[in-house]
Amino acid sequence: MDFHFLDCIRRTKQKTALTREEINAMVQGIVSEPLIPDYQLAAWLMAVCCNGLTDEETAALTMAMRDSGQVMQWNLDGPVADKHSTGGVGDKTTLILAPIAAACGIYMPKMSGRGLGHTGGTIDKLESIPGMRTNLEPEEFLRIVKKVGCAVAMQSGSLAPADKKLYALRDVTATVDSIPLICASIMSKKLATGADHILLDVKVGSGAFMKNDADAETLARLMKKAAEADGRQCTCILTDMDRPLGCCIGNALEVQEAIQVLRGDARNDLGELCLTLAAELLRMTGIEEIECRQKAEDALYSGKALERFAMMLEEQGGNPKIIDDTALLPQAACSRVLKAPQSGWIASMKSEEIGLASVRLGAGRMTKADAIDPAAGIVLHVKPGTEVLPGQPLLTMYAAGEAQLDDAEHLLMQAVAISREQPQILPQIHAKI
Amino acid sequence: MDFHFLDCIRRTKQKTALTREEINAMVQGIVSEPLIPDYQLAAWLMAVCCNGLTDEETAALTMAMRDSGQVMQWNLDGPVADKHSTGGVGDKTTLILAPIAAACGIYMPKMSGRGLGHTGGTIDKLESIPGMRTNLEPEEFLRIVKKVGCAVAMQSGSLAPADKKLYALRDVTATVDSIPLICASIMSKKLATGADHILLDVKVGSGAFMKNDADAETLARLMKKAAEADGRQCTCILTDMDRPLGCCIGNALEVQEAIQVLRGDARNDLGELCLTLAAELLRMTGIEEIECRQKAEDALYSGKALERFAMMLEEQGGNPKIIDDTALLPQAACSRVLKAPQSGWIASMKSEEIGLASVRLGAGRMTKADAIDPAAGIVLHVKPGTEVLPGQPLLTMYAAGEAQLDDAEHLLMQAVAISREQPQILPQIHAKI
Repeated sequence: MDFHFLDCIRRTKQKTALTREEINAMVQGIVSEPLIPDYQLAAWLMAVCCNGLTDEETAALTMAMRDSGQVMQWNLDGPVADKHSTGGVGDKTTLILAPIAAACGIYMPKMSGRGLGHTGGTIDKLESIPGMRTNLEPEEFLRIVKKVGCAVAMQSGSLAPADKKLYALRDVTATVDSIPLICASIMSKKLATGADHILLDVKVGSGAFMKNDADAETLARLMKKAAEADGRQCTCILTDMDRPLGCCIGNALEVQEAIQVLRGDARNDLGELCLTLAAELLRMTGIEEIECRQKAEDALYSGKALERFAMMLEEQGGNPKIIDDTALLPQAACSRVLKAPQSGWIASMKSEEIGLASVRLGAGRMTKADAIDPAAGIVLHVKPGTEVLPGQPLLTMYAAGEAQLDDAEHLLMQAVAISREQPQILPQIHAKI
Repeated sequence: MDFHFLDCIRRTKQKTALTREEINAMVQGIVSEPLIPDYQLAAWLMAVCCNGLTDEETAALTMAMRDSGQVMQWNLDGPVADKHSTGGVGDKTTLILAPIAAACGIYMPKMSGRGLGHTGGTIDKLESIPGMRTNLEPEEFLRIVKKVGCAVAMQSGSLAPADKKLYALRDVTATVDSIPLICASIMSKKLATGADHILLDVKVGSGAFMKNDADAETLARLMKKAAEADGRQCTCILTDMDRPLGCCIGNALEVQEAIQVLRGDARNDLGELCLTLAAELLRMTGIEEIECRQKAEDALYSGKALERFAMMLEEQGGNPKIIDDTALLPQAACSRVLKAPQSGWIASMKSEEIGLASVRLGAGRMTKADAIDPAAGIVLHVKPGTEVLPGQPLLTMYAAGEAQLDDAEHLLMQAVAISREQPQILPQIHAKI
């Protein structure tokens, strides 16, 4: 094909759809010579941000990006499932869900990323475990998945390399927040990972990419359509990210909280979400709907999921003793408790601000080059809806020094709103698509 | 100022206006270190194409671009005026208007560009005159303007260098056709040229950047506003570019036609437009409105304008004998007449197609690196509204060889529509703003 990318830019600018062949040629030009210059890609990306893409263009872009690198194949004796969260604050569900799924006979080869900005990343969380390796070679990854039922590895660079290049450019051109581009970025990697069943946890709210239900629903429908166009089964659960998930934010602290849930302390928002997701995964893999929740609970409360988690740690070089003694996880040198200045109800705990405060404490990074402090973070003692008295502890901050605590305190005081009236708290699960 | 261009991109994407300080910092980052990377500029340019800019942002961008290089100052004993056309097919008005203005006591230091795509450029036209130099040093330019009253020089690279860089990027990112960007590009150069009176000929129609009156009016008002914000007087005349202007298209052919008009053969669309523009220039410089047209006609029909043209040629190294003997201009080796296939009225002569056909003949260039044939082009024997009989000559093509004639013939046959009914012909001047 005689391919003129300038004409593609012009067409997207004029809201005229590109053909599948043009999109394929474009993705070719992202990963191989002759490369499309960055300034042309940047112009196109902004045209997409402003004008969108049709569902067909989005699906074609997703497939082309999937095919820009390795597409994995699993030949296992049971269903292979994947789960992805669009990113949030305090989201450690993978650490809980993967072992539950494994304990239920579902294979879950999970590829994850690092945190950036106010949102955390599963790889950072796991790496707070002494000895834990996440940079797994394909053979080792497969071996562990086969043996344990689950493994969590760092996103491989050989999967969807076009996304990697495009994402780096989006990051520096203010073109991240486009629903079709987010869909193609997430789904190209998910489809390349090769799972038959894909469960997507689409976060909604101030701390998420999707600020409202309408946008989250649009993204969810688009991702589901792209997955189904590729013959995969896909469910999207829209969940709340106006408030942090669970009580711990920060890498070692989140591992600790995940272990608590795996130990059976699951009657809270985090445990409830993990069980809902696990039940949905079971339903997707063909289990009678009526049995799914029970099966998930059994896996959790029997300790079988915790067992799988321990096995996974052992296989990936992590110290499994942390399960019985979380003091073996990195510990922060300093801590400080923030107390309620007045009585009332916790009306809101803004997750974006809390996420940013955790970055100030050292738990996250603003640029990819920043180092993180695995022990730093925040433990919430109250959640939205809790009634508090003056002086009651709201949360505890953990950091390497007093300076970081000072830095984060101001942000956190602004993140927590106490009201005189009992607030309406939105349900955690907004919708299932 | 702590300047984050990424934030500017985001704001333009979200339709939030940038401040004057931010726009100044951006233009700084286009011409001097630390340079803003092209991919970020490209993303911003596309955001502007999709979302526009406010009038205040456009004016600020225009001023910042003007100040990115030299701003000329004229200390002359009469009014200094400038005229600019937004580009069209067969537009040789500068060659006629500048000498008329000079003959009326108005100084007209005119900087022009080369043609690109279907539109021609004054510099290419002048360079078809044997010996003519357009690459004038500032001192020489000033000397000729002082002596003759007018001079036409190639756009200096030291004026508005930010526009030069930005235009090159717009050209390769499909971000040329944005009204605020066109305004800033044109007006930054016009303001840097330092004239007090600026007359803008905004072309409208299929062969122009502005395809309809509404867009042309928007551009005109924006340019006028930017000029007035800088304390200049500015009038915009919206003129038709659905059909070519005059009868000749092609460089030496257009010089020949300009000489014809300067010789007094001005009772046609080209002569009429030049006299209208000249009268408007006189009005702007303070002449009583009732006298302007007469004064312009006197300058033309007395031969005084032709005299100025001859002086200008002499000063710029061009052979003034071409005025009496146009056979001294480059002559094409081959020609071919296209005839009317049927009787009827000429309903339309699409100027974009005719411009593109002239490029095929060798008169223009599709990329900046292309060479042009000064003798190539088209002479129209009829205009929209003319009644024709079968076999009547419609136009003559001129080129270096038969291959070019073959190539253009097909395009030209499609450009000319003959109808059975007498068509409505739009007036040449659509509006004055």
